[in-house]
Amino acid sequence: MFSSWLTQLNRGLATPIGRVAPLIWGSLSRSLMLSSQRRVPELSSFVARTNTCGELRSSHLGQEVTLCGWIQYRRQNIFLVLRDFQGLVQVLIPQDESAASVKKVLCEAPLESVVRVSGTVVSRPLGQENPKMPTGEIEIKVKAAELLNSCKKLPFEIKDFVKKTEALRLQYRYLDLRSFQMQYNLRLRSQMVMKMREYLCGCHGFVDVETPTLFKRTPGGAKEFVIPSREPGKFYSLPQSPQQFKQLLMVGGLDRYFQVARCYRDEGSRPDRQPEFTQIDIEMSFVDQTGIRSLIEGLLQYSWPSDKGPVGVPFPSMTFAEALASYGTDKPDTRFGMKIVDVSDMLRNTGAGFLRDALSQPQGSAKAIRVPEGVEVLPVFPKANRNWNSPVAKVVMEEQGLGLIRRMETQEEDMVLLTAGEHKSVCSSLGKLRLECADLLEARGVVLRDPALFSFLWVVDFPLFLPKEENPRELVSAHHPFTAPHPSDIHLLHTQPEKVRSQHYDLVLNGNEIGGGSIRIHDAQLQRYILETLLKEDVRLLSHLLQALDSGAPPHGGIALGLDRLICLVTGASSIRDVIAFPKSFRGHDLLSSAPDFVPPEDLKPYHIQVSWPTDSGAEKNSLNQPQHPES
Amino acid sequence: MFSSWLTQLNRGLATPIGRVAPLIWGSLSRSLMLSSQRRVPELSSFVARTNTCGELRSSHLGQEVTLCGWIQYRRQNIFLVLRDFQGLVQVLIPQDESAASVKKVLCEAPLESVVRVSGTVVSRPLGQENPKMPTGEIEIKVKAAELLNSCKKLPFEIKDFVKKTEALRLQYRYLDLRSFQMQYNLRLRSQMVMKMREYLCGCHGFVDVETPTLFKRTPGGAKEFVIPSREPGKFYSLPQSPQQFKQLLMVGGLDRYFQVARCYRDEGSRPDRQPEFTQIDIEMSFVDQTGIRSLIEGLLQYSWPSDKGPVGVPFPSMTFAEALASYGTDKPDTRFGMKIVDVSDMLRNTGAGFLRDALSQPQGSAKAIRVPEGVEVLPVFPKANRNWNSPVAKVVMEEQGLGLIRRMETQEEDMVLLTAGEHKSVCSSLGKLRLECADLLEARGVVLRDPALFSFLWVVDFPLFLPKEENPRELVSAHHPFTAPHPSDIHLLHTQPEKVRSQHYDLVLNGNEIGGGSIRIHDAQLQRYILETLLKEDVRLLSHLLQALDSGAPPHGGIALGLDRLICLVTGASSIRDVIAFPKSFRGHDLLSSAPDFVPPEDLKPYHIQVSWPTDSGAEKNSLNQPQHPES
Repeated sequence: MFSSWLTQLNRGLATPIGRVAPLIWGSLSRSLMLSSQRRVPELSSFVARTNTCGELRSSHLGQEVTLCGWIQYRRQNIFLVLRDFQGLVQVLIPQDESAASVKKVLCEAPLESVVRVSGTVVSRPLGQENPKMPTGEIEIKVKAAELLNSCKKLPFEIKDFVKKTEALRLQYRYLDLRSFQMQYNLRLRSQMVMKMREYLCGCHGFVDVETPTLFKRTPGGAKEFVIPSREPGKFYSLPQSPQQFKQLLMVGGLDRYFQVARCYRDEGSRPDRQPEFTQIDIEMSFVDQTGIRSLIEGLLQYSWPSDKGPVGVPFPSMTFAEALASYGTDKPDTRFGMKIVDVSDMLRNTGAGFLRDALSQPQGSAKAIRVPEGVEVLPVFPKANRNWNSPVAKVVMEEQGLGLIRRMETQEEDMVLLTAGEHKSVCSSLGKLRLECADLLEARGVVLRDPALFSFLWVVDFPLFLPKEENPRELVSAHHPFTAPHPSDIHLLHTQPEKVRSQHYDLVLNGNEIGGGSIRIHDAQLQRYILETLLKEDVRLLSHLLQALDSGAPPHGGIALGLDRLICLVTGASSIRDVIAFPKSFRGHDLLSSAPDFVPPEDLKPYHIQVSWPTDSGAEKNSLNQPQHPES
Repeated sequence: MFSSWLTQLNRGLATPIGRVAPLIWGSLSRSLMLSSQRRVPELSSFVARTNTCGELRSSHLGQEVTLCGWIQYRRQNIFLVLRDFQGLVQVLIPQDESAASVKKVLCEAPLESVVRVSGTVVSRPLGQENPKMPTGEIEIKVKAAELLNSCKKLPFEIKDFVKKTEALRLQYRYLDLRSFQMQYNLRLRSQMVMKMREYLCGCHGFVDVETPTLFKRTPGGAKEFVIPSREPGKFYSLPQSPQQFKQLLMVGGLDRYFQVARCYRDEGSRPDRQPEFTQIDIEMSFVDQTGIRSLIEGLLQYSWPSDKGPVGVPFPSMTFAEALASYGTDKPDTRFGMKIVDVSDMLRNTGAGFLRDALSQPQGSAKAIRVPEGVEVLPVFPKANRNWNSPVAKVVMEEQGLGLIRRMETQEEDMVLLTAGEHKSVCSSLGKLRLECADLLEARGVVLRDPALFSFLWVVDFPLFLPKEENPRELVSAHHPFTAPHPSDIHLLHTQPEKVRSQHYDLVLNGNEIGGGSIRIHDAQLQRYILETLLKEDVRLLSHLLQALDSGAPPHGGIALGLDRLICLVTGASSIRDVIAFPKSFRGHDLLSSAPDFVPPEDLKPYHIQVSWPTDSGAEKNSLNQPQHPES
């Protein structure tokens, strides 16, 4: 049973992603630590143990040790497996009469109780070594044992192979945290962030500056939580990022700023999003795009865990237009091909009416992707080199068949997906199909994306503005209004602002956006023109920023990396909730403490607010006295 | 003018505290960095300069450099002083016709404009060196110059000797940040925290874990900001500390946790307090008081800036009872004597009625402090060795005069302050008088507290409970309900809980509480007894914590250091606002962005709240359309 648990532990780490070399308790945190700090941290300083359970090896043979840990498992009242954050060790329960009290402690304590044991590190008898266990060559001959805390009620067994629902895991997070996977994720996160700090502070003179989280609501900040103050009607808000503050720090001559910044976004219920999240927030003066990109490439290279393979730099880059045309998205997963191919020219004179119609529209185009071995996956679709079963396809194949096959480099068993329409929507649809086909292919065992590959990509040259959804003749910022226009397009700002590209850049990893930033506007006049004339914003609300730009603002730029998402990709976790110690549920609840919760009206009085209860139902009001876990 | 500005800069740093060796632009950040990182950070990587202004020395002679900075000062269109975060450098404006365009740029740009210059590092002519300036041996012979941003409107001159009100400094914080003092404070803060991280992560295997700030209101959490959620009537709250989470991390087997944690406390208007503040938050398993104390002593020793002198360990410790009896406070300033002396025994049979009365009360006592040279300061008070001018004093002096003089070790010109009454209030009064006298003495030039001395002190053995103010027969936690009782006093818990001492400890520096922590209760039964029976709390609200303690919670303890206060004391800043980049005013306002601010009612709708406008006046409502700085 013990060994199967351990195997499960290892498998638990390796399975969901397939790219992590088998890891075992204890092997990891120390190796990461070593490479990062160039020293072995003392893990037993200041406490009532001499060693950790997981660090013991043959080199400790004969040593008298004191260990503290949790009773993981017990066999026949002879063996006991003790666990701490560093790993597992086997303990021999003494059987002689003189050690009856020790035996009693170790045999009577329920599993997951906390004990301290003292004894000698001895070799396991020949043939009883466990090569799967880092401590498998030794065991502890115990002389003294003390029960530090008895474990009473467990809502579920603490074994990784016992499948728990996520709601249960979140409600009893303190138990879930004892799993190898959660220990691994949180320790890797801590160590990777520490290396980032070394790189930024130690290698490049960045200053870690804390910026306020009690801020002022930004105009149109619909996703910002509000916090009532003690002044009637006045509210703070929790900022979505330290954007304004970091720019003001540049105006203040700080030169190089970074912060591991807590940010907030109220999006209601969104899967795999958190109302509070963390970003590595960076800003520099006198820098251009190339500078920021090199900085970030160096940062990731420096902080990357050594067991995840080296990070190659520089990262490739791609324009937004190219990303859209070839991958149908601004965050292409470049680990595999299946790029979108334009076939408009071949189909312009086709007999198929829908194609002719689509191609004659503005921005009209026909595009295709080739799904290798796609026939295996979606046999309902027509095969490229056989008879097509839709009338339109038949027309196309008859007329342009060979050309298409050649252009798409179609092989036997491949599938071609073809569509026509407005450029952006065609690309976008094929981009989504591309990813869905990749998932389907991999589910069938086709290796498409190397699980050990981390494919970084810069996406650049985004449009500065987008048409407003409600009124496409008005403009909104594609990212935020402080983004500088592309120097080559400045001349278009007054005539064709919709054509201006920006100095925004996104960092993409394996098809996920993990960072974004820009060179900012440092010229007050330009900033005012964009805010007032192009975006029709009320500039009074940003007057402090405009004033700052007029007070000797240096040219500056920066970036923010989404730490939760990055760590999620590095660890191969299936959700960002698995790299956060106490995440909220997808409905924004803390299932452990049941936050958010009702607050008595008298506690709201100092803040001059009252609850507007929904009028169509009094149900919510009644539930005041019945706190419940809505997700349990 | 330039040199006087520089002198002022230096004086500006040294004056308010007197203990900082004269420091100049550029000398500091690099020296701190060196000792901390054992490598020189590249300060000009990734950007459009080759060097910083402040780093240039004779060793750079002949080098072609490109610098970016602010025009600090210009003299006769011949010299210009350029400033960046690292310091100042003198630039020679070219006078020859061929460089007319360069001269134009450098002479026409307003002060505080941002320029880039390229040129050669040359020696200053003999006799023109400035030994007060780190770059004073060299100057830059400029060949090219570019105006990067012109400075238009400045609300005040950026010179440290121009006295600005704090409100103005906060409103234009981005200008205030350009001062040497703010640059110094923020950089020292960043570097000291970085060293703390090295010590905790690198030397002792701590894990940096981020805990949520969207939490649930704790029972009686009157100082917790509330955040409405999108569920009617339900609120998150901003926690005052990660206390519950860090204990749950220990239950989760994290073993060693730390976090530089943002915390929140809504206290309305309080001078020198901030609604959001930062603490170094630490928790360990299997630790006792001694362990935590050694850890913290090592932490401060390791992270202490080298130019502030070494930190001696271990720190002395004192019981709460002793601190009260000798210093009249739980945070004694041990940099100087003037301790409280009990003279009850000498006065028990005095002819002075008020003394007899006071001493016959329960806890009645008479105590005194000796103010050395106090006669100089408060000549209105009677002198110890002369005729006393109050009738009571006369009686006392006649009867016990010599004994008192001997007990108090009174010297010529000393003053003795004597009072009688209930022990605690007598001590407390004398404790306050002691500090006031020290201030008065120092204002008169008496050196009482060595300005270079950092006097750390542990205060221990606090009472576990205090009588409730409203009803002294009920108990409240002296600190928080998770604090473990002192092992020697456990037996009193059921009989005389008010006499039980706790395992709480405070860290005091120069009379300021800079940290506090405790060994926690890890036994669910004990925790329940204290919450339910002794404190009469509704345990349902903490059921998740009680359940966690019953699930194999290890013995654990921790501490939190107040980072803002600590950095304030280290830098010698006169207010914590001077060690925070963007602090709130004492009324809780961000004077830069004018937060908190009004929010349109429609933006409150998703949160199911509305403002309860005060009924006695409509004034606040009207001001909706007139945003103002109430403190300006």
